Amino acid sequence: MPPAAQNSVNSAGALADAVAAGDRRALAQAITLVESVRQDDVTAAERLLAQLLPRTGRAMRLGISGAPGVGKSTFIEAFGRHLTGKGHRVAVLAIDPSSRRSGGSILGDKTRMEELARDPNAFIRPSPAGTAPGGVARRTREAMLLAEAAGFDVVIVETVGVGQSETAVADMTDLFVLLIAPGGGDDLQGIKRGVMELADLVVVTKADGDHADAARRAAADFRGALHLLRPKHSGFVPKVLMVSAIRNRGVGEVWAAVSHLHSGLLERGILASQRREQAHRWFHAEVRAVLAEMLAADRTMAARAAQLEAAVAEGRALPHAAARELVRAFRGA
Amino acid sequence: MPPAAQNSVNSAGALADAVAAGDRRALAQAITLVESVRQDDVTAAERLLAQLLPRTGRAMRLGISGAPGVGKSTFIEAFGRHLTGKGHRVAVLAIDPSSRRSGGSILGDKTRMEELARDPNAFIRPSPAGTAPGGVARRTREAMLLAEAAGFDVVIVETVGVGQSETAVADMTDLFVLLIAPGGGDDLQGIKRGVMELADLVVVTKADGDHADAARRAAADFRGALHLLRPKHSGFVPKVLMVSAIRNRGVGEVWAAVSHLHSGLLERGILASQRREQAHRWFHAEVRAVLAEMLAADRTMAARAAQLEAAVAEGRALPHAAARELVRAFRGA
Repeated sequence: MPPAAQNSVNSAGALADAVAAGDRRALAQAITLVESVRQDDVTAAERLLAQLLPRTGRAMRLGISGAPGVGKSTFIEAFGRHLTGKGHRVAVLAIDPSSRRSGGSILGDKTRMEELARDPNAFIRPSPAGTAPGGVARRTREAMLLAEAAGFDVVIVETVGVGQSETAVADMTDLFVLLIAPGGGDDLQGIKRGVMELADLVVVTKADGDHADAARRAAADFRGALHLLRPKHSGFVPKVLMVSAIRNRGVGEVWAAVSHLHSGLLERGILASQRREQAHRWFHAEVRAVLAEMLAADRTMAARAAQLEAAVAEGRALPHAAARELVRAFRGA
Repeated sequence: MPPAAQNSVNSAGALADAVAAGDRRALAQAITLVESVRQDDVTAAERLLAQLLPRTGRAMRLGISGAPGVGKSTFIEAFGRHLTGKGHRVAVLAIDPSSRRSGGSILGDKTRMEELARDPNAFIRPSPAGTAPGGVARRTREAMLLAEAAGFDVVIVETVGVGQSETAVADMTDLFVLLIAPGGGDDLQGIKRGVMELADLVVVTKADGDHADAARRAAADFRGALHLLRPKHSGFVPKVLMVSAIRNRGVGEVWAAVSHLHSGLLERGILASQRREQAHRWFHAEVRAVLAEMLAADRTMAARAAQLEAAVAEGRALPHAAARELVRAFRGA
């Protein structure tokens, strides 16, 4: 029997207590529970989350994204170590929409973030595998709540930036940090549509050695581009900072900028209203997800929905009439 | 009795025939029918749209947006006249999300687009008033289908660009044209977040007299900015053109660019797949709208939904559990 199972907490109440006490193993077990699709686990997870809900919401929620090869793990390791060194407790959760492998591909590789993983004040959790992209976002949101309940005061949600994952991350965090690697002058054009508008802070990585000049050019390019965009929050133009994670340079400045921005947004009430809006959107996304699940679970309904959708796509049916037919069938079924 | 009512077509079949014959008065009457919220009108409108559906989808669908004061009406009048002069039949539909007045505020003013309004090959229709923003989009989409059924081969959907209206317009048209007025050098920063990414073509207006230099600078700024963004369709970097509508200069070039781009997208199958995606999103938006309508229409359900939403916003309930409760109540109600 593996050690985790030996020490597993069996009753829901005991698990909630262990999470609330900050026990990392209990937190890992709780996240596994919310990721499970077994019906009894789903019920237990919901009870657990409801119990811990009053303990959530107190962490700084930080989204970090960057293309593959940008040096995301190296940066997060240095950044996380900087934070634990200052007495913070840091949880790192990953969203990898492309991952279907067990354990996820972002952090599943044990050689990544080795030091941070060994740090008693850090908690690292890879993306749940085998779920739909929307499902990953839901599970990550719930994992974030659990990490908060376990007393982690900085929760980092990282993503490689495939598909809609940056938007999902920006929509569940307080601040969104975009990592950029200095490149061949086409950095800006390599950025996915709309991603730059999500950024509260841009960090140019690998600003050392041969890359130093390219990093400075990239930083200047991004500063110029950001001035062309309206800031996400009025009065807060995103900063562009440079770091060398391997030389541990600039990491403290990133934390200073992040915490300064976070308190600014907090003081002006922007953070509170942003979280309320996020909760609102999350609820409505859940309503849609629950409806979709119920439709899919009912064979007759699922077939009808597919037929109506095809008829609309091919111009044989009007969306409004088709939608009414579907919803009526759903309600009457 | 006003002339319109005297000549109104009374049976649904006769109205469909008159619209299909290209009768502008019948088209106006049909649009009034789809805008009506009276239950018998809603049923009649749905029947009418279903009858005309096979005649729809053949027009070029063109979105045009610009801030107040950019010279939108002046441009659309010159552009529309250019098109009717070339033998096209042009319908102009307006979305004004800020309008609550009868007849809408965009085109309700009879002095606007006077010449185009008198042109027998043009049809101008203001925004429906008194409806929710989502409702305006739905009605405009249906009005667009009716205009297509009436044989208008270019349908222009215009908006002043308040709130989410540009996104709504871009999502119901083939091409999106952004109008910009030359200003004090801060043109780019005045553009709303995300709007530039919707543009297939940028047109700088008022490129004449005292504005000529400012117009050239604005055009150069926008060309630079557009190169920083990924093009909406791979291989098609948006052009920036200058017009002087009052001197009737550049209007032909805008039409040339629009029709060239439209055929390019058509030939590569991009247009067809874009329309399929739009239909898909429209259907799902309708499913959500129908659900929202049914929830709102049912007092008990509406109260329950409001309670659950508040509980989620205040962190007292989990979105997933709240959503499941709402959907179950809806299905069981």
